[in-house]
Amino acid sequence: MKILYCDEIKTIVRGLDLLPLIKKGFVAYSEGRSVVPPVGELSFKDPPGDVHIKYGYITGDEYYVIKIASGFWNNEQLGISNGQGMMLLFKQQTGQCEAILLDDAYLTDVRTAVAGAICAELFANEVNCIGVLGTGLQARMQVQYLKNITSCHKVLVWGRNRKKMEIYQKDMARLGFQVDLSSAPKEVAKECNLIITTTASTVPLLSSINIQPGTHITAMGSDTLTKQELEVDILSMADLVVADSIAQCKERGEIFHGLTSGSITKDEIVELGSILNGSQAGRSSPDQITVADLTGVAVQDIQIAAAVHKAYKEKNK
Amino acid sequence: MKILYCDEIKTIVRGLDLLPLIKKGFVAYSEGRSVVPPVGELSFKDPPGDVHIKYGYITGDEYYVIKIASGFWNNEQLGISNGQGMMLLFKQQTGQCEAILLDDAYLTDVRTAVAGAICAELFANEVNCIGVLGTGLQARMQVQYLKNITSCHKVLVWGRNRKKMEIYQKDMARLGFQVDLSSAPKEVAKECNLIITTTASTVPLLSSINIQPGTHITAMGSDTLTKQELEVDILSMADLVVADSIAQCKERGEIFHGLTSGSITKDEIVELGSILNGSQAGRSSPDQITVADLTGVAVQDIQIAAAVHKAYKEKNK
Repeated sequence: MKILYCDEIKTIVRGLDLLPLIKKGFVAYSEGRSVVPPVGELSFKDPPGDVHIKYGYITGDEYYVIKIASGFWNNEQLGISNGQGMMLLFKQQTGQCEAILLDDAYLTDVRTAVAGAICAELFANEVNCIGVLGTGLQARMQVQYLKNITSCHKVLVWGRNRKKMEIYQKDMARLGFQVDLSSAPKEVAKECNLIITTTASTVPLLSSINIQPGTHITAMGSDTLTKQELEVDILSMADLVVADSIAQCKERGEIFHGLTSGSITKDEIVELGSILNGSQAGRSSPDQITVADLTGVAVQDIQIAAAVHKAYKEKNK
Repeated sequence: MKILYCDEIKTIVRGLDLLPLIKKGFVAYSEGRSVVPPVGELSFKDPPGDVHIKYGYITGDEYYVIKIASGFWNNEQLGISNGQGMMLLFKQQTGQCEAILLDDAYLTDVRTAVAGAICAELFANEVNCIGVLGTGLQARMQVQYLKNITSCHKVLVWGRNRKKMEIYQKDMARLGFQVDLSSAPKEVAKECNLIITTTASTVPLLSSINIQPGTHITAMGSDTLTKQELEVDILSMADLVVADSIAQCKERGEIFHGLTSGSITKDEIVELGSILNGSQAGRSSPDQITVADLTGVAVQDIQIAAAVHKAYKEKNK
């Protein structure tokens, strides 16, 4: 059994072409070729924290994967990363553990950013300006992973905290992005035709009246019952509402709020893998408004963990 | 973060007094001082295998624990242990991983045997002969862990495979037990007033007509929907039916079959921790027939993992 540490994992990830792999995962999921039980959850009150256990396998693969990822929101004050976690690979033939990837939640961040890039590639028009809500890690990684998708390096960011916006601006400038700061989410909506929402907000930040025709929104901040970044009227207005997992989006995220409020029906939701395999249509005209709701599916973890492990084995043959 | 391997874990366990620790875990569970979500499960068809993810924490403790344990029934043919697994300790304050116990499911075996010993101590009369159904690992460990509970070293064993019974007899003789072989489960019931059932049977092996007054049965083989070792009439006849976790036994194990068949009602089931803390009565007369149904609760994993880790830290201060 191999234990891979974070530095090694980061080096390996740099050499991987992840988009096709994660796409394959979504397709396997939507075609019913994967087993992905409901997410395991553990909550803590003092200090506040959430643990998510995502696990499953693609039928016929070599491994099954268990991913443990947590967010403890007070860690920042202690100088420790809020996100913690690891991915474990076990042989489907015997249950033996093959590798432990001590990634400190890094692979979750990457596969989430890759899913965002897949959505931007599929659904966004030619990007005039990348709109970002939030100034955290995903606000950075989602934009970085767009580098191969769009040549647009203009970003308009909004965050609750001015100082954090300024740090974001500086950090992203170093990565080649020209970032302007925004005073309100609706300003982002007016200026940008690709919007990525990455906050942990429990109050909607964007409303349908602000969204321009032709906009694509990838909402990835909300992954629980209580979090919500979009007014449900955005979902009812949208020409296309995409879920990474319909089963999961019924239980959490933006679509959960849309369904419980009656703003959309289950039949209006299309699964990402079904668009990727061509069985369902994506954006059909430049004027359409499209929304992708990403809650994070274990197939993404399975694919990235297997890819890192495979590359490690090849490197150390 | 520390990684402990199996040999080291076994050495540490030899020095631990586990009964009081596991009792405390059951009491915390029954008193609602623990958070134990439903068991995560993953099934494989070819080759057949089950993975159980048990996780949770005791409020106010230092760690939360995730346990991964699998059974792949064809492993034996490959010379690999059917049981595989590990326990992971994470800080409740930050979510950081503190230790990985690569125990190959050994700690699950121990905490299961300890739960059996707790039940024997609480519910069995003076033991005339220890009856065992099954010849596998738990058939051995359950008996070994009775060494401090009863001075009786007489065992009557039944298993489907004669050869395995003979190996069991030899192995247990080396550990100081005088083992006789039985040709049928009902013979075990007639001769023994403490019976431990440890098989993966999906067909009931014991019926009420065979059980003698004063018998205690610990049923620990059935931990899924399909497995069953006791006819439900044993539960309706019993004076006391104990569950390690009522919530869990409603979903799996012997009590699940008793409830779905209507042989017993929920009100007739007493939780182990409620007897241990004195809030509910255990056996009240020598003639009573008592049954304990053990499906394995995450508090046992939490307690044993924390104890092993604490002992390791003290040893390596």
